[in-house]
Amino acid sequence: MTISGFILDPAFAATSFRLGDLRLCEARLQDDARYPWIVLIPRLPGLREVEDLDSAQRALLMEEAVLAGAAVRAVGAAAGLAVEKLNLGALGNVTPQLHLHVVGRRMNDPAWPAPVWGHGEAEPYEAAAWDIAISAARAILSL
Amino acid sequence: MTISGFILDPAFAATSFRLGDLRLCEARLQDDARYPWIVLIPRLPGLREVEDLDSAQRALLMEEAVLAGAAVRAVGAAAGLAVEKLNLGALGNVTPQLHLHVVGRRMNDPAWPAPVWGHGEAEPYEAAAWDIAISAARAILSL
Repeated sequence: MTISGFILDPAFAATSFRLGDLRLCEARLQDDARYPWIVLIPRLPGLREVEDLDSAQRALLMEEAVLAGAAVRAVGAAAGLAVEKLNLGALGNVTPQLHLHVVGRRMNDPAWPAPVWGHGEAEPYEAAAWDIAISAARAILSL
Repeated sequence: MTISGFILDPAFAATSFRLGDLRLCEARLQDDARYPWIVLIPRLPGLREVEDLDSAQRALLMEEAVLAGAAVRAVGAAAGLAVEKLNLGALGNVTPQLHLHVVGRRMNDPAWPAPVWGHGEAEPYEAAAWDIAISAARAILSL
């Protein structure tokens, strides 16, 4: 899979931490302790919509989303916040580079049942909890 | 593909119109003139998360999402509301039956850049515009 020319939008670095590269996507952990949350960014240049991927790449994105969902559940479990519903979203209204959010929701989370995007301010993890979250995510993602 | 036992949650009928059945999903047009918007509901019983589909079904869901995106663009164009960004979302926080939203966004739409879900009240189409929207969507979806 061609990945030359891929440049990550700096907006992602400001809000999330690089877990590593899956076959298609860079996987990043959102630094927001309110929700276990992974962002997948396909590592190809010039992407804006899912339709900009070919069908094989789209299928791979879905498989990586399912894997990220398992990782999000593990991050939630490690923090004592068992995930009750996964939310998947590819919006890109603010950061246009194609990316897919995989967010673990709980019925008592701050935004429930509304979407998390644009709801309140992120609450950065404390250092120890952050290390635990990163390890939990990487174990599932094999990163 | 097995579809026996599929029952549509009545919540969909209250807010959208059945365009027809794609290979995997029932396609419905959301009755909200603020945004060209199609909802895809995989026609299999007991689904709640994308991970409840097998990988072939997930790949098909993605292909149908891309097709629905083209239909959403056509609905927007027919209403003079050219789509500038597609938003895809599988949330299910309110209606748990697995479904995927495909929404056409414009930088001057009422919710931009926030998500559309839970934002304000739906504005039902007027009769003539509704017929045009349905026809535009069905033409692209071959329904």
